Amino acid sequence: MNLNQCPVLVDHNTHIAVRELDLPIQIEKVALRTPDSPIHQINPLGRVPALQLDDGTLITENSAILPYLADQVPGTPLFAAAGTTERAQIQSWLGYLSAEIHTATFRPLNRPERYSAAETAHPGIRAQAQVQILKAFEHIEQHLTDRQWLVGERYTLADAYLGVFSNWLLRLGGPFNELHAIGRLREQWRERPAVQQALKAEGLL
Amino acid sequence: MNLNQCPVLVDHNTHIAVRELDLPIQIEKVALRTPDSPIHQINPLGRVPALQLDDGTLITENSAILPYLADQVPGTPLFAAAGTTERAQIQSWLGYLSAEIHTATFRPLNRPERYSAAETAHPGIRAQAQVQILKAFEHIEQHLTDRQWLVGERYTLADAYLGVFSNWLLRLGGPFNELHAIGRLREQWRERPAVQQALKAEGLL
Ligand SMILES: N[C@@H](CCC(=O)N[C@@H](CS)C(=O)NCC(=O)O)C(=O)O
Ligand SMILES: N[C@@H](CCC(=O)N[C@@H](CS)C(=O)NCC(=O)O)C(=O)O
Repeated sequence: MNLNQCPVLVDHNTHIAVRELDLPIQIEKVALRTPDSPIHQINPLGRVPALQLDDGTLITENSAILPYLADQVPGTPLFAAAGTTERAQIQSWLGYLSAEIHTATFRPLNRPERYSAAETAHPGIRAQAQVQILKAFEHIEQHLTDRQWLVGERYTLADAYLGVFSNWLLRLGGPFNELHAIGRLREQWRERPAVQQALKAEGLL
Repeated sequence: MNLNQCPVLVDHNTHIAVRELDLPIQIEKVALRTPDSPIHQINPLGRVPALQLDDGTLITENSAILPYLADQVPGTPLFAAAGTTERAQIQSWLGYLSAEIHTATFRPLNRPERYSAAETAHPGIRAQAQVQILKAFEHIEQHLTDRQWLVGERYTLADAYLGVFSNWLLRLGGPFNELHAIGRLREQWRERPAVQQALKAEGLL
């Protein structure tokens, strides 16, 4: 597999993982939610992340792309071997962050029009989204109270992915500033060279 | 690992996979959305599936539990080895079904109160959920047009999981009856002994 030749349309999470793993993957920036974006040629869903392999195979979903990338570097401390409890735990957090945090709660906050055609309903949807985001993060906060990282004693794919969402919380403020364990994780995440490089390359630093 | 000793709280999807893989796992039925349900002792999120391992470790999310279970049976045709394109594809569909189908679109249909505190907004949320469910399934329908199964030439975890949702579509009717490729997959899924056993054990057959 020559990952170098693949056009890979990534989001921020995947970008960071690619840099952590030092993989020769081509990153492309694309516009989202514009009908002429090149993303539609790669992913009919119009979403990132989307990983296109050499043979044209399309892989979507953070919970699949991040594990696949890490499996290209067997033994990486970011992940764990198939069948182990650690891998199941990391995959469980990836699934939670993808389904319950990103897709289930941030989407109604950012795209209320996908939840009701009635514009008058949108403020109520945004308000309720914040309630659900807080609930979903309090579960993580609880877990992190006596732990530095989500799984085991080291930084894994799960923390790389959580770092991104912990950064999004800064825009929300209010009760989200009280999630101190998540705040600590964010500070450590930000100091990682791979995160700094990705943020710089995306013009976010 | 003596899976036999674990209280495992599963949903329908996981139940089917446990039977397909012939794993010695204890299945427990629990009430959902009642404060005194035993699920809260196992999973603070109050959701199924929840897999509790011997050492107390909790694994949630279908996209993590199904792969973990399949990895206990190395070489099973339901899954594929770490690092392979096939595994990435199966994991991609599990992620899509979990995040984009189950959590992002069926939840607003069934639990509109989690998307707005205003009851007057609920009919609009339910209506829009049907629009999004149809869109999300049309992507699958398209993929299945010239294929029997989601990945490769055989039934995998991805099809086992899709089967459950294809069954849910029967309650919706209307345009959902026009998803013929998904309907064909449902018929084949239903004929599998593991599916029949799970449906019977749950009193659904
Ligand atoms: N279920 C997907 C969700 C990905 C997602 O929602 N990506 C956003 C960018 S952060 C996107 O592409 N949005 C464009 C759209 O939904 O139209 C995953 O977890 O990977
Ligand atoms: N993100 C989870 C969602 C699981 C889920 O929503 N399960 C439902 C049952 S089908 C549930 O437990 N609902 C109870 C609740 O949300 O309170 C996954 O994909 O596994």
